[in-house]
Order: sequence, then structure tokens, then C-alpha cells
Amino acid sequence: MGDLKLVKKFEVKEGFFGRYEKLVKDVVLPYQERALRDQIEGAEKSHCIENFRMAAQKLKTGSCDGEFYGMVFQDSDVAKWLEGAAYSLAQNPDAQLEKRCDEIIELIGQAQQEDGYLNTYFTVKEPDKRWTNLQEAHELYCAGHMIEAAVAYAECTGKRRLLEIMCGMADHIYRRFVKDGAEGYPGHPEIELALMRLYRSTGEERYKELAMHFINVRGVDSDYYIREKEKCGWRVWGSDPEDKEYTQSAAPVRQQEKAVGHAVRAVYLYTGMADAAMETGDQELAKACETLWHNITQHRMYVTGAIGSAYEGEAFTKDDHLPNDTAYAETCAAIGLIFFSNKMLYLARNGKYADVMEWALYNGVLAGMQLDGTKFFYVNPLEVLPGISGEAKTHKHALPVRPKWFTCACCPPNVARLLASVSEYAWHMTEDTLYSNLFIAGTLDLTDSLGGKVSLQTAYPYDHKIEYHFAPQEKAMSVSLAIRIPAWSKDTKITRNGMAADYEIKDGYAYLHGDFGKDDIVTVELDMQMQKVYTSNRVSANTGRAAVLRGPLVYCAEGVDNENDILSLSLKKDGRMTISEYLPEKLCGIQEIYAEGYRETVSEELYSYHAPEEEPCEITLVPYYTWGNRGLNQMRVWIPEKK
Amino acid sequence: MGDLKLVKKFEVKEGFFGRYEKLVKDVVLPYQERALRDQIEGAEKSHCIENFRMAAQKLKTGSCDGEFYGMVFQDSDVAKWLEGAAYSLAQNPDAQLEKRCDEIIELIGQAQQEDGYLNTYFTVKEPDKRWTNLQEAHELYCAGHMIEAAVAYAECTGKRRLLEIMCGMADHIYRRFVKDGAEGYPGHPEIELALMRLYRSTGEERYKELAMHFINVRGVDSDYYIREKEKCGWRVWGSDPEDKEYTQSAAPVRQQEKAVGHAVRAVYLYTGMADAAMETGDQELAKACETLWHNITQHRMYVTGAIGSAYEGEAFTKDDHLPNDTAYAETCAAIGLIFFSNKMLYLARNGKYADVMEWALYNGVLAGMQLDGTKFFYVNPLEVLPGISGEAKTHKHALPVRPKWFTCACCPPNVARLLASVSEYAWHMTEDTLYSNLFIAGTLDLTDSLGGKVSLQTAYPYDHKIEYHFAPQEKAMSVSLAIRIPAWSKDTKITRNGMAADYEIKDGYAYLHGDFGKDDIVTVELDMQMQKVYTSNRVSANTGRAAVLRGPLVYCAEGVDNENDILSLSLKKDGRMTISEYLPEKLCGIQEIYAEGYRETVSEELYSYHAPEEEPCEITLVPYYTWGNRGLNQMRVWIPEKK
Repeated sequence: MGDLKLVKKFEVKEGFFGRYEKLVKDVVLPYQERALRDQIEGAEKSHCIENFRMAAQKLKTGSCDGEFYGMVFQDSDVAKWLEGAAYSLAQNPDAQLEKRCDEIIELIGQAQQEDGYLNTYFTVKEPDKRWTNLQEAHELYCAGHMIEAAVAYAECTGKRRLLEIMCGMADHIYRRFVKDGAEGYPGHPEIELALMRLYRSTGEERYKELAMHFINVRGVDSDYYIREKEKCGWRVWGSDPEDKEYTQSAAPVRQQEKAVGHAVRAVYLYTGMADAAMETGDQELAKACETLWHNITQHRMYVTGAIGSAYEGEAFTKDDHLPNDTAYAETCAAIGLIFFSNKMLYLARNGKYADVMEWALYNGVLAGMQLDGTKFFYVNPLEVLPGISGEAKTHKHALPVRPKWFTCACCPPNVARLLASVSEYAWHMTEDTLYSNLFIAGTLDLTDSLGGKVSLQTAYPYDHKIEYHFAPQEKAMSVSLAIRIPAWSKDTKITRNGMAADYEIKDGYAYLHGDFGKDDIVTVELDMQMQKVYTSNRVSANTGRAAVLRGPLVYCAEGVDNENDILSLSLKKDGRMTISEYLPEKLCGIQEIYAEGYRETVSEELYSYHAPEEEPCEITLVPYYTWGNRGLNQMRVWIPEKK
Repeated sequence: MGDLKLVKKFEVKEGFFGRYEKLVKDVVLPYQERALRDQIEGAEKSHCIENFRMAAQKLKTGSCDGEFYGMVFQDSDVAKWLEGAAYSLAQNPDAQLEKRCDEIIELIGQAQQEDGYLNTYFTVKEPDKRWTNLQEAHELYCAGHMIEAAVAYAECTGKRRLLEIMCGMADHIYRRFVKDGAEGYPGHPEIELALMRLYRSTGEERYKELAMHFINVRGVDSDYYIREKEKCGWRVWGSDPEDKEYTQSAAPVRQQEKAVGHAVRAVYLYTGMADAAMETGDQELAKACETLWHNITQHRMYVTGAIGSAYEGEAFTKDDHLPNDTAYAETCAAIGLIFFSNKMLYLARNGKYADVMEWALYNGVLAGMQLDGTKFFYVNPLEVLPGISGEAKTHKHALPVRPKWFTCACCPPNVARLLASVSEYAWHMTEDTLYSNLFIAGTLDLTDSLGGKVSLQTAYPYDHKIEYHFAPQEKAMSVSLAIRIPAWSKDTKITRNGMAADYEIKDGYAYLHGDFGKDDIVTVELDMQMQKVYTSNRVSANTGRAAVLRGPLVYCAEGVDNENDILSLSLKKDGRMTISEYLPEKLCGIQEIYAEGYRETVSEELYSYHAPEEEPCEITLVPYYTWGNRGLNQMRVWIPEKK
């Protein structure tokens, strides 16, 4: 199930994600390719393609003319970019891009050792140390990303060269860890989910077996990294193997109940676990996934779908600890939460998973990229104060404006590959049901399976109306159309050709059964009233505060719209909120919200015995994903509310 | 001026500080002595007296029978304890304690090298490295504390042995840094303020000269620590000399405008600067002190008088960044702010300095010690949440209950020496004026200067009435009595023998001129209404929130008084507040405040589209200094306020 079956078949040329699809093709992928080739002035150096060139040279000649540069997992940037390029090529044939991809893949092939091993850090720099430091050295992580790229490239372009390369590496890993019984499991999970994809793409059982192996041994021997450190005697970052939570290895995965440690590692692991649970029917594993997903979404997730409350360890902290200004909220972690939720949706069809997926996509992930596609956030706080954010020692990570690139550049290509494959999340197809999870405009070609096309027409999230136009080639398309009804839509109307439609609601989906003929139109009208959302009073940071949402969009106040002072604003309880027309020129097209509120005086004295005076005002709010596109600026999502 | 002239002469036997005076004598000093001697089970090891024993042994025999243990500045714990003991002995003669102090002082003398050098870390462990790492190794800091102890012990007991020892060390330092022109200045300021005390106590100009030297060279050569690191080749903690803010060495002190870096170092430095400005009339230095004091108190100070917003570097961060739960707010730093404010009060007589001094004393400092005197906080947050505080990686420093002792035990003996010398801050005496800065009950013996005694009678801070009873031996005492009128007292009544008194108000003091005869009573009635205080909306953490104060006491809500859930409480704007009778059995005697407020429902769902429901409630508040005395418990100072 899943894995791009629909990516090739879903044309996203219009609407909200049509712009992103085009941006990825025209700007993001070319920009990132130049970044990877170190051609962007003033950006952090990448060197990652160069690393492959040197590895190839060294394998051919015995030496190379330069030094490895970058993070120990620098290879994964190439992988993620290639994966994004593959998705884009599926939608937008581009002979030049494909040629360059093929060349990079050739280079990757040349950088592969005879036994299948592939990793430029070790090949170029530390040939004697491979497989000695699983906790830190990320060989399995890099392999996982390249496997994902290989599967995507094969499925999207039909070209199997990278897949063959990566099957070679996967076989190498299989031999080492399964056949030869080598100890250990990946410090940074990723290979588990990648192997599940490889298994589905190739049908080779041993890849599933290998994925299950890594899942099953994790945390069973929770001292593994301690012994490994003693044995190997070298460190990448000096990570402490006693910190077992950091690597999700304190207990066997089926016994883990709290999402802990490095947030990206956690959700990548859970994604692999959920995928494996789906493929194997492992109920215990499925239950652990549900427990962990619930723990995240009910105790450890920002309203933007971002996760990771602390810079320290880029990590989850404790239940109900969600600081806004010091949030880590890594773009990659929100992406990982989408992966995890998507697999949960496959595992246990329930709209709640899609609700979180959508929340993370429209907020936590999209905010990770400048609207023009050329700058990126690694960290996505929910409150930004120039002078403190990015400057105070406690806020060095929480930059107030997006940089061009990063020394650790995991996030930018991750955004690219996600945005180029939204159909994977938008649609799920089972034997008899077409699930519409996210409302992304485009045309889905189901000729092979259902004998026709379905086109989804909408200006969502800036319109509440979603239309499904059916276009069978001959006879009507016989399928159940399951449309997710978001939890926030309190009053949803579904019609079929203008008449009230027959449907049944189950677990957050409206199921319309039957045959859909030519010109059949199903119309969903969501209830997209502006709403205030409140955090449970378990969470200290947001007591007395509200945030404004409309549909899937979280809104925020920025200084530039609010007299450069948002800290003295408060929302009026039960106050009026109005929404602008669609403003096509503003922030690439948004609707602003104007909320009735108060502006308080700002006392000169730090502490005063006089309550600040207040006067009514209108607070201008913009979608959170657009913040930080207008220079250095205050930003706040959670705003005090008073009567 | 200042420096214990009045300590010996002020008997604090009753009232609020009478309890503390007795506690310090009966519990704190004996407890800490046992801690220093490693006699407390389950407490962190100190070993600091043992270090002196070994240093003495080594100097005598050429070797010693153990190893140095503890922080590089472990000596200073002995010094601060001795200083506290000296103050206590001045009030409470205790032959046994004095004998033990004398023995320790003898040991210190035996640990002094022939050239005057005194430091057990270097003598025992690193004899060849002395004076090579001023940034980290704290030799000057330890010397400063022992000088303070020496001055105190001499002034309080009349015994000059320690003073002679420390004059020897001060002379050694003078030779090195002034006569021989050695480069450098202390990484941890303290010796400046200590040398000013030594100068006043001995009258030796060279100690003032040495203090001025360290003040004057600081930051002039702002690369000093960088060169030092290159030269010395060893580190204590790996401190980065490029971080010049951390050590207040980025610019010459007279050009510094923001309080930066390690908060204790900063305020110790500023204390020395203010003292030096007072003694030398250096207007530029005085102006820098005023600028820095203003920066702290208007941008970087918690309402409890605590300072230091970040664990990282135990440091100030940026203007208007005052997080409550992750505050560092070190007890020592609040004590340092008292020192600094006290010197500012000498420098420029204005009640605002005493207001801050009092705020820090009754809140930020007193909270640093368990009410029974046997446990201590290093960090004093303004919000504590069990499960997060002390547990999340971001909150490891913010313990929710007081430990018995610390590996780095700077705070406990600092509290002891401060509490044993409150008269230094309570009273200032100039040629013609007796300043009453803090309202601490006790009897001041001014027989030598004014021919009589003044006794201050009050149950303050739990009563608003303060009486000054004059008791001249013969003729009336001719003096101006200057009584500080706290800024929070909006309606103050001053009477003399029951009749409206003649007085003039200037800079926060009421001046009563004239002759005070036998049985003359001046009565001050302060306006101690409960008040809400608001933080300027420049500060994000407290927007929409209020705190409750009464007189100098900041109040807080603890879970134990409020159904174990304080996060769902909000104060009612303009709501009624009532105060209990004095409860002698509760928390060693307090008055509780009951504030009209609301209790909101706590949503099960992390995020909800429904505003929490609220019902009226009464919030019980207790003085901040008493928090954490009833087990693991929520605590919050700043509470959301709504209409």
C-alpha cells in the first residue's frame, strides 16, 4: 500500500499546491542542486556531490584529490534531493534534470564498494571504521535515504540503476546484521521505513525481514551503544550512550509509551514501526504505534503540528511542555510526523491521523520554507522576538529570518521531497475505496484501476468548497469515495450533482458508495469559520491565551501588520473576527483575519502597580506558514485573551 | 562608609529577622560547618576544610596524604562560612564556635605559602600553574572571599590573625599585578569589592589602589583571556575566552552599558565599581554603575529581585527576556544585587536602591533557603511544574525541591553571611543622618556616636507599623532620622509621640530632623495594601498576567493550597483580595492572601475549539520565600488575569 502508487498519476497543476509544485520544479530543486554543488554565494558549503566524486575517484585510483567535507550524514542531502527530483520528474518531464540525476546516480554507483557498501564519509575519510559507531555515524540512516531515493527514482522514471545500487547496499546490510548476526541498530532510525518501501517496490521479503530485525532488536539490548562506545573508541559528536531516551533505545519498541529523545529519529522510527505493523499484522507493534502517536499529539505537539520542545538534543522533553519561543520544532520533525500519521492512517483508517497530517503540512512544514523557495528554517518557533530570538544564548537556534542553507542541511531537501509528493498523503487507494485525505487540487488518473479520472477542484485552504469531478472513459467508475471530514468542520455539507448526497460517516470519513458516471460531481462544503483554539491548561505556556485558526491554517500576528508591537495585544473573548477577500498579491495569496482585541499600554517601568490601560483594536493575523517573509519582525501565535 | 560598622551594634533578637538570626546561629552555621566537614549524610561532599589541612601538611612536610577535592574555588566556601560565623559571633558570643573558627583560621595560616600566596587548589594540586589561568581558576575570587572573611572576623571578634594572613595575600597580589606589572584581571570579580573593604578596615591605600587597578584594566585589553588561554594551555571548564560578555571584559568598565554575562560575576564587579566610585569620587565610574543598575532593574530583573535569565553561563541574556520556569535566578546573584544596590545607596542616596535591595532580600534570597535552614536552592524559578522542573533537559537546573548541599556550594554560605549581617543593609549612618533602609526589628547601639540607642519595633513585613524608640543615655540624641518610604507605600503616615511628625521627603526618604529624647517614639505606618503588579508588555512571558504583592513580599500560588492545579487559575481583574490573620504555625508564620479568581476546566484534549469553562474561585497565595517547603508541588508567581 502507499509508496507513490499515485504520485505519478496525480497532476497538481493548479490551486494552492499547484504553486508549490511549480515552485519546487522551477526554483527549489534547481536552487538546492546549486547548493549541493556549492554554487550559491553566501550560503553554507555543502560539498555533498563532491564527496561522491572523491569516493568514486578513490575506489578507482586508490586515492583522491581532496578531503571529505560536511556532516557524517552529508550523503543524505543528495539522496533527499534526488528523491524530490524523482517526484518532480513524474509530474514534469524534464530531460535536462533527468540527465543530471542520471549522472549523479552513475557517480553514486562508482562510489559503491565491491561488497555493496556505500557511504562517502567512510570510503573517503575513515575506511577502517565502517560499522563501528552505529550510534553516531549514521551509515544506516544514509543508506535509508538513498534507498528511498532509489525506490522513488525507479517508480517515477522507470530507471532502475539506483535501485540496483541500493539493493546492493541493502543486501550488504542484510548479510552483516541478519546472516552474520552483527550486533546493533541504527542510532538514527530511517532505514526501517526505507526498507519497507524497498520491500514493497521489489517484493523481496528479506528487506522486510531486515526492517523487522532493526525494529525488533532496538532497545532489547539497551546497553548496546554503551558497549559500542567502549569498543570503537571514536566519537562523532561525543554523544552519550547512557542517554538511552535520546536514541529511543531505553526499552524494546513495543514497550515504549512516550515519544522521547531526538524528535526526527523518533518519528522516523515510529513510521517504520507503523509501516511494518501494517505489512505484518503485528498487533503489539500497532498498539505501540497508537500509544506513541497519541502521546505526541496529545502531549508533545505544537498547534502547528511541529514537535520537539527543546534545542538540547533536538528533542522531545516531557508531557505538556511546549514553550513557544524556545521551541525546536524542526521542519524535518514535522515532516516525520506526517510520515508517521500517514502510516497510521493506512494502519487504522481514522480521520484524526489525516487531521494531524494536514495541520503539520500547512503549518509546521510550509513555514520551513521562504515563500520564494530559496530560504529555509530548521527551527520553527511559535513566537519570535527580534533582539532575543536567534540572539540570547537560550535562543541561538530560533532564528527570526530564514537562512539560505545550513551546515546541517537536512530540512531543505526534506521539504522539497515532501512537497513534490503530496499526492502520497492526499490520496489513499484500497481495493474498493478511494480515500481523499487532503484537499489538494489536481487530476488523478485512475484509468488503470477504475477506468477514468477524478479531478479535485478547489481553492482550499482559501475556499471551503471542494469538488470531485468524475470522468470515466466508458462505464461509470465503481468505487467508494471516502472523503475526510476534518474535525474542525462542524457543519459539513456534501452534495452530488447539486442534490444532497447519500453517505455514511465513519471515523472522520464520509463514505459515498456507488457508481460515478461522466460529469458526476461530488461537492463538499466545509465549515471554514474562523475559530479560536485553546491549549489544555496542562500546558503552562499557553494558559490564558488563544490562537486563531481557519480550516487547516494556524494564524499568527506579525509586528509588521500590528504597529511593530504584538506583545501588548490581546484577543477579545467572543470578539468578532472578520476575514479579508483573497489577496492574490499578498504573501503569494492569502486571506488575512482581523480579530477584535485590545492594545495595552507598554509601561516604561519594568514593573508597575498600575494595570496597563487598554483600548479596543483590530489585530491583523496572517497564516503562520507565511511568517518571516517580510524581514525581521515580531511573531506570535498564542495571544492572551480577555473578556 | 559601611562595612559592618553597625553589625556589632545592632541586636536582632525579635521579629521576622530575629527568627533568621537565631536560625543562622542555631541551625544554618552548624549545619554548614558539618557540610564543610563532610558530616552530613546524603549531602554532596565538600572537603573544603580538608583541602586546607592537606595544603598545610604539604607546605610543612612536602607532601600530603590525600587529593584536592571540589571546585577550583572550593576555598571560598570556607571563607563565606567564616564570614557568616563572624557576624553571628558579633551578635551571639559563642566560645565554642569562636574556638573552632580560630582553629580553622590557624589552618588557613598554615596553608599560606611563604610569599603570601594562599589557595589550596594550586598548593595541593597544581603548584606550578598558579596565576596562569585568571579566567577560570578563581584565585583572585577565592582571595576576595577570604579577605572579606578576614575583615569581618577582625571587626566582629577583634581578632586579627586572618586579617594578617589576608593582608599577606593581598600584598602578594599587589606585588604581582601592580609592582611587577603582571597582566590580567579576575575571571570572576570579587576581589575588587573585598579590597575596598580591606582598604577601609586597614586604611592601607595600596588595597584601594589594587582594587582600582583591577577595575581599570578590565576590558581595556579585551583579548587578554584569549592570549592567556593560548599561553597557559590548560582549562578548568573549557571556558571560551572569545565570549567576552561572559566575563564582562568586552569593553572597559566605564563604557559598559548592559549587564551581561555570568550574573554573579557581573554584580560583584559592579559592587566593587560602585564602592570604588564612592571612595574615589570617580564620576565616570559612578555613572557607569547607575547605567548598569538601571539596565538590570528595568530590563533584566525578576520581580523577586532575582537576576540571570539563563542556565547557559548562569547568565543575563537580553533586555526584557525573563522566562519564569527556566530562570536561573541564582541565590548568589540576588545577594550580589543586594550588595550592588547597597553600594549604590551609599553612592547616591535614593530609596529606589533600597527598594530593590529589600525586594531581593525578602524574595530572591530568602527563597534560597528552606525555612528550617537545612536545605538550599541554587536556582530560584518563578514557576515550577513537577514532571518538567528539574526533569526536562531544559529544566535540569530548576529543581522543584531544595537539596541538602551542592557540588558547587556557593549559595548556602552566601545566604548565611547575608542573613547574619542584615544590619549592614538595614542601617546607614553618615555624620549627621541615621538612615533606616530596611525595617528590621532590633536595637541599635549608638552610644559611641549619638549617646544612646534606637530600637526598631515591628512585626514587619506582617505588620505595617514601624516604631523607632529612642533611648539616649543622657541628653537627647541629635541626628536626622531618614526613613525610607518604599515606592509601594502609597499613603504613609508618620507620627512622633502620637502627633503628626514634621518631615521632608527627598528621593524616597522621609527626613525627621532634630533631637530625639528619652521615650521619643517615631511611628511609621506604611500602606501595606495588597497590590497586583504588572510587567511591562515588553516582556513576553508575563503578558496578560499579574502577580500579587504586599509590602516587600511577592506572593505565589502553590498547588498544595489550590487543589494541586494552579495552571487553570486566573486572577479576576479588580477582584477582591483578602488577607488572613497572622498564622504563626503556618510556614514559620505568614499571612495568606485569598484572591478572587477563576478556575478553568482542564481540557483532556491538548487543543480544543472550545474555550475552557470557568467558575469563580478563591486563589490562595503564600509568600514566595516560603515556596517549596511542603513537598513536590506546583508553584507560580505570574498568573493570568481576566475581567
